[in-house]
Amino acid sequence: MINVGIIGVGTVGESVAKILHDNRDIISARAGKEIVVKKGVVRDLKKARSVDIPLTDNVDEVLEDPSIDIVVELMGGVEAPYAVVKKALKSGKAVVTANKALLAYHRYELQDIAKDIPFEFEASVAGGIPIIKALKDGLSANHIESIKGIINGTANYILTKMMQDGVDFEPILEEAQELGYAEADPTFDIGGFDAAHKLLILASIAYGIDAKPEDILIEGIEKITQEDIVFAKEFGYTIKLLGIAKKVGDFVELRVHPALVSKEKMISKVDGVMNGISVVGDKVGETMYYGPGAGGDATASAVISDIIAIARNGKSSPMLGFKRPLESGLKLLERESVVSRYYLRLLVADRPGVLAKVSQAMGEENISIETMLQKPRSDESASLLLATHLCEERAMQAALRRLFDLESVKEHPVMIRIED
Amino acid sequence: MINVGIIGVGTVGESVAKILHDNRDIISARAGKEIVVKKGVVRDLKKARSVDIPLTDNVDEVLEDPSIDIVVELMGGVEAPYAVVKKALKSGKAVVTANKALLAYHRYELQDIAKDIPFEFEASVAGGIPIIKALKDGLSANHIESIKGIINGTANYILTKMMQDGVDFEPILEEAQELGYAEADPTFDIGGFDAAHKLLILASIAYGIDAKPEDILIEGIEKITQEDIVFAKEFGYTIKLLGIAKKVGDFVELRVHPALVSKEKMISKVDGVMNGISVVGDKVGETMYYGPGAGGDATASAVISDIIAIARNGKSSPMLGFKRPLESGLKLLERESVVSRYYLRLLVADRPGVLAKVSQAMGEENISIETMLQKPRSDESASLLLATHLCEERAMQAALRRLFDLESVKEHPVMIRIED
Repeated sequence: MINVGIIGVGTVGESVAKILHDNRDIISARAGKEIVVKKGVVRDLKKARSVDIPLTDNVDEVLEDPSIDIVVELMGGVEAPYAVVKKALKSGKAVVTANKALLAYHRYELQDIAKDIPFEFEASVAGGIPIIKALKDGLSANHIESIKGIINGTANYILTKMMQDGVDFEPILEEAQELGYAEADPTFDIGGFDAAHKLLILASIAYGIDAKPEDILIEGIEKITQEDIVFAKEFGYTIKLLGIAKKVGDFVELRVHPALVSKEKMISKVDGVMNGISVVGDKVGETMYYGPGAGGDATASAVISDIIAIARNGKSSPMLGFKRPLESGLKLLERESVVSRYYLRLLVADRPGVLAKVSQAMGEENISIETMLQKPRSDESASLLLATHLCEERAMQAALRRLFDLESVKEHPVMIRIED
Repeated sequence: MINVGIIGVGTVGESVAKILHDNRDIISARAGKEIVVKKGVVRDLKKARSVDIPLTDNVDEVLEDPSIDIVVELMGGVEAPYAVVKKALKSGKAVVTANKALLAYHRYELQDIAKDIPFEFEASVAGGIPIIKALKDGLSANHIESIKGIINGTANYILTKMMQDGVDFEPILEEAQELGYAEADPTFDIGGFDAAHKLLILASIAYGIDAKPEDILIEGIEKITQEDIVFAKEFGYTIKLLGIAKKVGDFVELRVHPALVSKEKMISKVDGVMNGISVVGDKVGETMYYGPGAGGDATASAVISDIIAIARNGKSSPMLGFKRPLESGLKLLERESVVSRYYLRLLVADRPGVLAKVSQAMGEENISIETMLQKPRSDESASLLLATHLCEERAMQAALRRLFDLESVKEHPVMIRIED
């Protein structure tokens, strides 16, 4: 028998308790042991809950109960759960968490503290999709060449609707908020920060690389308009918010931003609130993992898969995939050195000579233009939409400054990277 | 240090040896141990090999070498590898195999023999896609409601080409043979038998159900023509060879056949030689796994992931997912009781009254028609294409007999199931 304590009995915590009860036959047949929720910790004992487990508002009733084998941390936040999880590990209890922010900031400290105590976090990335296990176990023979993930359902829902229905960002965000797909303050999701947390976790497993959210390029989807969507469609692309980790020589690129993705790619077909992660290994080639990235039951499915793994094996694979952390010796590539193709949208004055000036500004940074499309607007201005060949971010940023300085360019240019 | 013996050093065996050498740094960092190929067993010692490992033509030099920890069985066939694997397990050696036929026939005997000795087989289904681990570990909290897999790359390549290029079955099969995507005798792949072996393995993990290939419905893709493709396109379908396992009450359906699949479904987007498996869990909902189903390096990636898992954990999860086999008590549903929608293609005489007779034959078996399309042909006959509502296989088979008995029906009707 394995006793579990759940700290934080919200949507996911309730699902965990319910599924452990409802599916106890198959779970114990697979785990070889009965798994029982001994106690749940909540902030407000008076709030009605839909599960029948013993509750307390004192976290030490779980942390100091010697009969509890596994602590499931579902509190949210960073520093409070960090303290709780540290205490659990130090008293020898295994830990399962769904907390991506905790791991984005403290995963290497936690790996050091955990040592041989099981610490699992399948639910922290892409909800019900077993992507952590795929990277840690399924693809363990490979050097990972790249990871490209649609790992934020809110952003993907909005972009999918913009593509499919031709509607602008704002009304779809409002609709998503009404449907419960977006928070009242949606910044964390649509700004790319949530995806960045998840990307850092995946990159640790793939590359043994340490980085904080502050260290990497993060751009959101707020500036995308129907003009960009129309351009994307015309040239065979869809627009997705991607978390990208890519090995380039001895460096790793880590970035989160909207990207034009060829419609031929499997990842471009991941629509709506669904998540999908494409992983390229040096030996296996591309594999992709698709499924629900959020929701109580889907997330609980991942949490419980970790509990079952601990019940079966105790400590299984190393927490972050490597027995020796940072084994690979790979370093974070500085943002300015990332090489990409780019799409630009410029609002320009509709008069002779503008095109020449724009191409000259690009040429001075050695950026060559692949495709250009000019669309007149009603107000004596025009939209200039263009795609470049490969260039360094550094050159692109310089070109953007040059372009914005041109008298005929009326607004700050909008730039979206192209992932081929 | 872990010593490995490889029995059968063909394409996959060579890849296993090469990758264990080429990627030894990352593999030992992940496994926490060095993994070394101690010996390879081949039939013909004179044949040139591209790997530098000690070779023998005597299998006992591996089976009786006490320093060898893991036997990798890559011989092919059923009874010979069964004897080898039994002997390895009985002498306490862990076994890794990519042999789907061996498991299709002997997986439960092998589970009994293996007991607490590790026995892994990730490479036996869908090559480099870690679908076995996903089912055993990632989705372990769930009752599996259904598995729908494109698990034969040859068949999928042919069907994809038929859809995309509008060419008939025969010339594409020949092209596939020239490209090495199809065997000289392609029956095993295009007849659905290879997919059936893989399906039985997946179904054991999902349901703990025992069945042999002979027990289940297996149909190939040989009879599909461009007329069927055109109908499929017109009504928003693609045609895929699917391996389907589905829980219906206390029964499990197991079947392999071509199917019309809605273009909206993620699985319908798996094209060419790629594999994809959609799994629906009662809690997580749908997840899908996509990647290369064959090839030396992709298959070796899966084989080595098993070796690493054994190096890390010893015995991890139970061989077929359940500590107690057949835990679930689910039974195989007899073929005639499977409920499906159907598409039919009839070659009929182009004269009055034929439609009435066809609908009457269907009506007498209580099958209602949803869609009907009649296309004239040049030879005073017509093609009658129709889709039905849900009915039992038993009724459909009776209706097919009635239809074939009609004087105006000129050929045996072609039937393809519809998976919604």
